[in-house]
Amino acid sequence: MQFTINRERFVQSVQDVSKAISPRTTIPILTGIKIDAAEDGVTLTGSDSDISIESFIPFEENGEQIVTVETEGTIVLQARFFADIIKKLPENTLELSVTDQFTAQVKSGSSVFNINGLDPDEYPRLPEIDESSVFKMPKNLLKSMIRQTAFAVSTVETRPILTGIHWALSGEKLTCTATDSHRLAMRHAEVKSNDADLSFSNVVIPGKSLSELSKIIDDSDELIDIIVAENQILFKATNLLFFSRLLDGNYPATDNMIPTSGKTNITLETKHLLDAIERALLLSREGKNNVVHVKSLEDGKIEITSVTPEVGKVTEHVATNSYDGEALQISFNGKNMIDALKIVESSEITVDFTGAMSPFVLKPAEMDHMLHLFSPVRTY
Amino acid sequence: MQFTINRERFVQSVQDVSKAISPRTTIPILTGIKIDAAEDGVTLTGSDSDISIESFIPFEENGEQIVTVETEGTIVLQARFFADIIKKLPENTLELSVTDQFTAQVKSGSSVFNINGLDPDEYPRLPEIDESSVFKMPKNLLKSMIRQTAFAVSTVETRPILTGIHWALSGEKLTCTATDSHRLAMRHAEVKSNDADLSFSNVVIPGKSLSELSKIIDDSDELIDIIVAENQILFKATNLLFFSRLLDGNYPATDNMIPTSGKTNITLETKHLLDAIERALLLSREGKNNVVHVKSLEDGKIEITSVTPEVGKVTEHVATNSYDGEALQISFNGKNMIDALKIVESSEITVDFTGAMSPFVLKPAEMDHMLHLFSPVRTY
Repeated sequence: MQFTINRERFVQSVQDVSKAISPRTTIPILTGIKIDAAEDGVTLTGSDSDISIESFIPFEENGEQIVTVETEGTIVLQARFFADIIKKLPENTLELSVTDQFTAQVKSGSSVFNINGLDPDEYPRLPEIDESSVFKMPKNLLKSMIRQTAFAVSTVETRPILTGIHWALSGEKLTCTATDSHRLAMRHAEVKSNDADLSFSNVVIPGKSLSELSKIIDDSDELIDIIVAENQILFKATNLLFFSRLLDGNYPATDNMIPTSGKTNITLETKHLLDAIERALLLSREGKNNVVHVKSLEDGKIEITSVTPEVGKVTEHVATNSYDGEALQISFNGKNMIDALKIVESSEITVDFTGAMSPFVLKPAEMDHMLHLFSPVRTY
Repeated sequence: MQFTINRERFVQSVQDVSKAISPRTTIPILTGIKIDAAEDGVTLTGSDSDISIESFIPFEENGEQIVTVETEGTIVLQARFFADIIKKLPENTLELSVTDQFTAQVKSGSSVFNINGLDPDEYPRLPEIDESSVFKMPKNLLKSMIRQTAFAVSTVETRPILTGIHWALSGEKLTCTATDSHRLAMRHAEVKSNDADLSFSNVVIPGKSLSELSKIIDDSDELIDIIVAENQILFKATNLLFFSRLLDGNYPATDNMIPTSGKTNITLETKHLLDAIERALLLSREGKNNVVHVKSLEDGKIEITSVTPEVGKVTEHVATNSYDGEALQISFNGKNMIDALKIVESSEITVDFTGAMSPFVLKPAEMDHMLHLFSPVRTY
């Protein structure tokens, strides 16, 4: 194997596939990046067996030649060093060649690296997926949906299914739901499919997989293809394949958890509420329970308080834009609400309460594509 | 105590004095910031008993009123929360008052914080220092001198004296020296004194103290006063006092360690050498010895190599601007040289070698205010 390649483009692909590689893997071959040089370009692969990423560098891109393959071939090189090495090389191009059986040489200007590699025959094959049923959405919409749900997954392994995000498709409407059983984030969007009847539910994608995917795809409105198979999901963009395994098990039914009628409905400025809760939690970092108490005041304002006995007490008053219904007194995890308020892309929100001990709903004002549910905290 | 203060200016002073406060202190009162409101302004103090910082906020600055003191008084408040609280308050001013004996209230807009404090009578007094002998230098020069020596102090406590920077003054020339016994950094500068005969040696200031000082003072050419006392040093700038204790013990004599004649003298571009050594060390991160080997080539170039058997080998060629003397073959700690090359403010450097097993000297080309000494490493 021997090829000369544009260094910057190569760095980009190496960084992309490195996202799949775990430094803690127990399978030695998966510590490496598989590099495959063929006539039409160079293919890089990284995998931790949950996620696999394949990035293709064609010999020409935007009318510019970026790879010259002298000899075809394959090698696996340690990911840990490799990205750093090629980032710091002195010239705009580099030459990569396999010198000995599993040894590679990287040359750029007056720098020469001789690096020990691994046997490419040991590298696992990527899953084979039937691509007959596919749906599409813009990359930037996919990124938003991930950002607006992934934060709410469970980070503890007691119920592994909750570390994933539930995807359901029906009538070209995709619904993504994540919950850690104390709060829930849900996001809808319209998608396009080659089969308008395509539908699925109980597809649960590890939150970590989607977070890594989100880092790799750009913020453009270019479409990305999505294919759901038995126990895998495949995301396909130009020169990029991203595979993730799906989580086994049944995701809890979340539809009936969402209250449909509220007793107190308020609308208020997202930023005012966010700032007030952030300040209210400043003293409770020690206590770690992050509980804030909210009660309604006479003048349409709400009062947010947080007490940490050893340290002190915070009191915040926040004006509402509208206040309808019963007087309010409720306690909840303020940190969870901060997470949600940070990803709401709306300057105004509505909150529907149904009593001090019932879950309550937060939505962007006058929008229906997103919903957040919070459980109150019993404080007595 | 009760005062109203410009929030931004208050944040600045709180952050400055917080630099002296250690979260790991075993003396409870030193976890706090002492706040002292008097007729002419507010004084803040922070201390970890090694370093003490006092910042004064006058009632007027640049023609703008920044403090209004209603009632004089003193309190000590937990530093950990306090900086975060005042940073996040909603308005441009805040009101601080002592409500109960050791409890304070902070108000800004619709935010109210009630914070438990500590008894100011328990707060230690700052050292009293005879200020009759003082020398001065511009703040930006002091910052440079710290940056160019502090990196070379020892970080292990086996020889505590080497965790400090040695200062010597004679004939209005200040010499700062730091060494961890493997490498040494020395920096000279002219200073001004009210007593041209003022001299001292064996003043050893903890490296950590000078690094903290460097973070607080700005990069201006305003003069800072420096007073050396028995076991303390005091830095005095406008509205700022910075005290540090001095280290006990005798600093090793370093003058006779520096070779005066070399056998091989080379000059080369700082950046070329820095880039080449950084690349040479990319594979050795695992080995942790950071050894690079340098040898001269026929054509006036030098070759830098580094081998990590399990990973691979790097070879770098670097052109010299001039090469005089014997052929060269030496091994040394590349990481130490990177530290020095990063703070040399000169595009060209000279290196003087006196043999494979002798310390060698690196200087900015054609400048005499700075010197770096490195011990070679025996590799056989």
